[in-house]
Amino acid sequence: MDGERAMRDPEFTLATGPAGVYPRVLAALSQPITHYYDPVFLERFRRTEAKVGQVFGTANEIILLQGEAVLGLEAAARSLVRPGMPVLNLVSGIYGQAMSLWLKSFGAQLHELGVAYDEAIDPHEVAAYLDAHPEIELLCVVHCETPSGTLNDCSRIGPVARARGVLTLVDCVASLGGMPFDPDGWQLDVCVGAPHKCLGAPPGMSLLALSPGAWAAIERNPVAPRDSFLSLLDWRDRWHGSGRFPYTPSVSGVYGLEAACDVFLEEGRAAVLARHELAARACRAGATAMGLRLWPAREAIMAASVTAIAVPDGLDQAAVCDYVRARYDVLISGSEGAGNLVRIGHMGPTASAFHPVVGLAALGRSLADLGADVRIGDGLEAALAVVADIRRTSA
Amino acid sequence: MDGERAMRDPEFTLATGPAGVYPRVLAALSQPITHYYDPVFLERFRRTEAKVGQVFGTANEIILLQGEAVLGLEAAARSLVRPGMPVLNLVSGIYGQAMSLWLKSFGAQLHELGVAYDEAIDPHEVAAYLDAHPEIELLCVVHCETPSGTLNDCSRIGPVARARGVLTLVDCVASLGGMPFDPDGWQLDVCVGAPHKCLGAPPGMSLLALSPGAWAAIERNPVAPRDSFLSLLDWRDRWHGSGRFPYTPSVSGVYGLEAACDVFLEEGRAAVLARHELAARACRAGATAMGLRLWPAREAIMAASVTAIAVPDGLDQAAVCDYVRARYDVLISGSEGAGNLVRIGHMGPTASAFHPVVGLAALGRSLADLGADVRIGDGLEAALAVVADIRRTSA
Amino acid sequence: MDGERAMRDPEFTLATGPAGVYPRVLAALSQPITHYYDPVFLERFRRTEAKVGQVFGTANEIILLQGEAVLGLEAAARSLVRPGMPVLNLVSGIYGQAMSLWLKSFGAQLHELGVAYDEAIDPHEVAAYLDAHPEIELLCVVHCETPSGTLNDCSRIGPVARARGVLTLVDCVASLGGMPFDPDGWQLDVCVGAPHKCLGAPPGMSLLALSPGAWAAIERNPVAPRDSFLSLLDWRDRWHGSGRFPYTPSVSGVYGLEAACDVFLEEGRAAVLARHELAARACRAGATAMGLRLWPAREAIMAASVTAIAVPDGLDQAAVCDYVRARYDVLISGSEGAGNLVRIGHMGPTASAFHPVVGLAALGRSLADLGADVRIGDGLEAALAVVADIRRTSA
Amino acid sequence: MDGERAMRDPEFTLATGPAGVYPRVLAALSQPITHYYDPVFLERFRRTEAKVGQVFGTANEIILLQGEAVLGLEAAARSLVRPGMPVLNLVSGIYGQAMSLWLKSFGAQLHELGVAYDEAIDPHEVAAYLDAHPEIELLCVVHCETPSGTLNDCSRIGPVARARGVLTLVDCVASLGGMPFDPDGWQLDVCVGAPHKCLGAPPGMSLLALSPGAWAAIERNPVAPRDSFLSLLDWRDRWHGSGRFPYTPSVSGVYGLEAACDVFLEEGRAAVLARHELAARACRAGATAMGLRLWPAREAIMAASVTAIAVPDGLDQAAVCDYVRARYDVLISGSEGAGNLVRIGHMGPTASAFHPVVGLAALGRSLADLGADVRIGDGLEAALAVVADIRRTSA
Repeated sequence: MDGERAMRDPEFTLATGPAGVYPRVLAALSQPITHYYDPVFLERFRRTEAKVGQVFGTANEIILLQGEAVLGLEAAARSLVRPGMPVLNLVSGIYGQAMSLWLKSFGAQLHELGVAYDEAIDPHEVAAYLDAHPEIELLCVVHCETPSGTLNDCSRIGPVARARGVLTLVDCVASLGGMPFDPDGWQLDVCVGAPHKCLGAPPGMSLLALSPGAWAAIERNPVAPRDSFLSLLDWRDRWHGSGRFPYTPSVSGVYGLEAACDVFLEEGRAAVLARHELAARACRAGATAMGLRLWPAREAIMAASVTAIAVPDGLDQAAVCDYVRARYDVLISGSEGAGNLVRIGHMGPTASAFHPVVGLAALGRSLADLGADVRIGDGLEAALAVVADIRRTSA
Repeated sequence: MDGERAMRDPEFTLATGPAGVYPRVLAALSQPITHYYDPVFLERFRRTEAKVGQVFGTANEIILLQGEAVLGLEAAARSLVRPGMPVLNLVSGIYGQAMSLWLKSFGAQLHELGVAYDEAIDPHEVAAYLDAHPEIELLCVVHCETPSGTLNDCSRIGPVARARGVLTLVDCVASLGGMPFDPDGWQLDVCVGAPHKCLGAPPGMSLLALSPGAWAAIERNPVAPRDSFLSLLDWRDRWHGSGRFPYTPSVSGVYGLEAACDVFLEEGRAAVLARHELAARACRAGATAMGLRLWPAREAIMAASVTAIAVPDGLDQAAVCDYVRARYDVLISGSEGAGNLVRIGHMGPTASAFHPVVGLAALGRSLADLGADVRIGDGLEAALAVVADIRRTSA
Repeated sequence: MDGERAMRDPEFTLATGPAGVYPRVLAALSQPITHYYDPVFLERFRRTEAKVGQVFGTANEIILLQGEAVLGLEAAARSLVRPGMPVLNLVSGIYGQAMSLWLKSFGAQLHELGVAYDEAIDPHEVAAYLDAHPEIELLCVVHCETPSGTLNDCSRIGPVARARGVLTLVDCVASLGGMPFDPDGWQLDVCVGAPHKCLGAPPGMSLLALSPGAWAAIERNPVAPRDSFLSLLDWRDRWHGSGRFPYTPSVSGVYGLEAACDVFLEEGRAAVLARHELAARACRAGATAMGLRLWPAREAIMAASVTAIAVPDGLDQAAVCDYVRARYDVLISGSEGAGNLVRIGHMGPTASAFHPVVGLAALGRSLADLGADVRIGDGLEAALAVVADIRRTSA
Repeated sequence: MDGERAMRDPEFTLATGPAGVYPRVLAALSQPITHYYDPVFLERFRRTEAKVGQVFGTANEIILLQGEAVLGLEAAARSLVRPGMPVLNLVSGIYGQAMSLWLKSFGAQLHELGVAYDEAIDPHEVAAYLDAHPEIELLCVVHCETPSGTLNDCSRIGPVARARGVLTLVDCVASLGGMPFDPDGWQLDVCVGAPHKCLGAPPGMSLLALSPGAWAAIERNPVAPRDSFLSLLDWRDRWHGSGRFPYTPSVSGVYGLEAACDVFLEEGRAAVLARHELAARACRAGATAMGLRLWPAREAIMAASVTAIAVPDGLDQAAVCDYVRARYDVLISGSEGAGNLVRIGHMGPTASAFHPVVGLAALGRSLADLGADVRIGDGLEAALAVVADIRRTSA
């Protein structure tokens, strides 16, 4: 294949984040940079925090860390965990697995509840585990495991933990703004989201919502980061406490984040979530009708922001993705170690009727080129039938 | 004063960074977001690293940390310092002072060489101190102390350290791209710069250049961050080693950084530095002729990117800055604790002939309003005379 | 149907121009406005004229009129035509028809050679007509008739006219930059193109290339516009003659146009034209396999920038387009009076592999919704088969 | 002087239009291009017309011609004037003079009332002239003569004309949005404005407000342009009559115009006009205190958007401007034939406190370089004193 072709800009980016940015967000990014202590910026930063709170739908305190979501996750875990602390980590995928490594390296006494990476954690088992281990102080869970396109039911896990006095640390990076998520109603303590998935902004920021209980635990933790880029306490004490930033915030990133929140809030939560759901249903129907198998074990645990599709026998996920990109200028995501699967992202601006159709078309045609037995036309027709069906009833 | 007026966008931002962004950088920020594993982005990231190396003027390895300069400084210090390590920190200002706090909290055996915050460290004293303390392994120095507008002579400090087998950690955040800086010629080991000062890009990134000796020390350091947002080793081993990012890079920030490097490289180092020097000389001449006193003790140690001006007796720096912003819509910087001084930044796009004139006009008029005895007209005329003089000889 | 849904931004604009703008062009549009007599702008304007000449592939003089293509066409026709002048107008579609109205109103002695609007003019008939009417001085022809998706063969009509001493006025608005076009090789005198079709820039400019013979005729014409927004002579005499603009040029429009030329010239004529051809072939194959009839009578006369598709009996083109937009957020074009047809544009950034697939999907699904008998899956599969086939051989 | 230096981008553009564009307008220009018949664009176009009406402050019908102001002026004059029509043209500057040439070439029976180009027309003389020539049907006047920085008092000329049944055609290109202007209160019939002066948008559009009386006259005029880029009737009958554009509108230009209207309307007419007035007063005071002479004969007739300054004896306006640009990277405007004068524009974003200071600094320093006797410091100090004075009372 022509190597040079592969270096052209993609015609479509249908990856699992970043996966396209709203035009209004792009325009915001190019606004003149005000100084971070200019009164106009100070007001804008506070306004953006408030809007992030509205996107979360929470009354909890919002912290905007100025680095992408991994910063937020590490900062949250380090803030909560002290050596010897008993922590239950739920592992249903790659990101859950990575949290276990961190927890161990931070000195936690690690408990794990795991399932295969095409499954989700059963809240009843969580309850039983916590009942059997009353010493556990913290539970970590990934809401949407993007590498396998699955969802853990935080709406039930949260109350299970809270009822037992266990704090929760929830990775909602790939669900915030694209799927139902309710920190207060679900009784979650530390939620870490990001702008570059369903919110349709570029990466570079961590969005955290922390409950009073979480703050109390962090304050008590002698090893919680202080005077550090990883510190949540610095942001609370300095920025929220005395109006001084711990370090220079990403001015243009804040502009972009505010614009992304505006898109979400003006379109409205219900409409945005419906768009993600529409895209997901169409994508699933299309893949299935094409003769492909969806990766997650059951539809009930499939995420609305990403469709994970098992790669037909004899083909390898990385090779498939490279082929799609090189031959058809479309970027879809491979596995990140969760199995032999590929993924079509439909988040933010690509959570729409036709972006999944493009993704299915590029994937289907590539699989056919590579020798797989796929019914491309049937797949695309089925995806469109779902769109038609949903639009008919919503019109 | 009318509070509402103060919330208007500034007419001019003449702070000490961010202090304006080149239009080409703003345009780059609004380009569509490609996925960070798209081949086009991978190439762009590597190209940007190479351009940052050219801006540094170094053959050392470049690491682009995806958070503003404080991340880079903390990551560098944590990577180099182990508990009990004897470290000499040069303290000529606020940022040097802050490094001492970090070094202590990281467990270093701290040595300090300090001067008043309107002075610079004498390289001879550094040599003498190191000779007297041969156990010292690391020397930390801030090249440009923006809070006081002074410069430490790294061109002489570097060789002094290297000759004694001492590694150097240099904060060049406010000098990179605006003043002579030569990591290889000056024998510096770890240099930490930033895009949002003289390079005229927004904040959100740390630019590091590390010598082979620095890497060797970091590898040997058992407490150097690993598997962390603070880790330099992750970037070297994963990204440079196997093409995997430790976490999602700030795609639009990389676009902006590349554009800023392009501006620097296309205009040319000599021309860009001459612009900064022109602005600085005009600003100093103007302030002096206005009847004000420059804060640094001697012209030889004044930075080209920021002019620090002592606030006349009876007035307070914060009140002066607030007044300038509220009454005249111009943002200049106050002190950050270095003394009763205000600062006019001239960096990146504001390193020009007339931006300092605006800064002097707004400052001078404000001081007059507040009762100080300033000769505004004389000051502005003197600044313009310097510009005229330099332009005449350069034309 | 929900009226409110129809007012959302389109998910895809697949109209026949403007039909999407390259991101690089959008970024250029937001660059700071220099004054039109600033030396930097003067150089930029001249450079842009030169690049437009390269896009045309002509050595003829380039005039950039600062209004959309209708301005250029009217200015050209008024400049060339004097009352009583015998003019042959070729009419194979709506734009040819409109030229007849103008020619009559300008007082020309009008000759017409026409065909049905799904056909193209036969160059032999042109030759025969000119031979039979040696008094004719000017021939007007539309290269690409966007309303019906057809192409007149200017490569043969040009030489026929030139051989008989007849000047040609060619509307290449919808072909320039997307299909083979060669003013000099084809011996064309006045060519009028535009940025907002195949070049992927916004509307607002007319791009003209004029031969020496054309200028001679215009100079001789006593009613050619002078001292007017419609004047070509003003631009030649004032701007090219003495460096004074007849009126203020559209500064940001010029920025956008230059960026669009850069996209074309850097990707390369062959590659850009191949993209348009790929999109057109895929779109035709898809529509046909779906069970639809292409509007033009023969494939040989189909344009590469737009696919015109006959609307199935019982449905109306306008209603179909409105439905596609309202129900599926995709904008395709209806007829402009050429018949009961709809059109999918594939020009500039939408001249790609998958934009036509989206257009076919939205159209096919809409027709099905409206009761037509279409095989959506077969159509999309056929379109993708063409893409696969072309990419295989080009890879 | 170094020719290469002159080709750098200007540090400041302080010309008389375009003279800087608001950042929000630049961001709007880079928004994705929707098709001009997309329902979202149709609504946006109508909304923009309404906002332009609000900026004009008129209930008259608004027409947005898609070419810069010369198009609007020519279209208006051609629409109103028929051969043999007696027309009174007021000539107090270059643009009035140019209108005379047009009127003659359109066949009007031309009457002229003129004054020297540093003066303004006396409304009493207009009344007397019209009384003496009751056959006159149309009066043409330029509100702000940018080439000489003067204003004609349309608030009194309008009623004089209306009382005598004479229609008025008013060029408000350089005053709309920056100075008091009131089409309805002042009884004006056809007003032609532009986005690229006080509104702070790029050139490329004509903004017209037409009274019912104007439309009646245009309808009666057999030579009013029809089916032409110059036609006002086409816009009224097609666009306003049946929702069809006469030709493709400048989509991105409309975006920019709407954003400029939003800036004006959100900041508020009074605040925007006060900004222009502040800049003008400061600029005049500065020039005078510098020892320069203002060009207009009296302060009462000076425009708020541009300060015209007589060039000291022995120097030439063009040479001065070229010098300012080449040596100091600042663009100010020379004369356009009105005399030996230079002009500093302060319109839209440059209608501020410090942009005029920069203009005075660059001009003053250049004049000094060229041998003139100017008191730069006194001038700048005087300008700042005016700013201080106005801000004190407004705070």
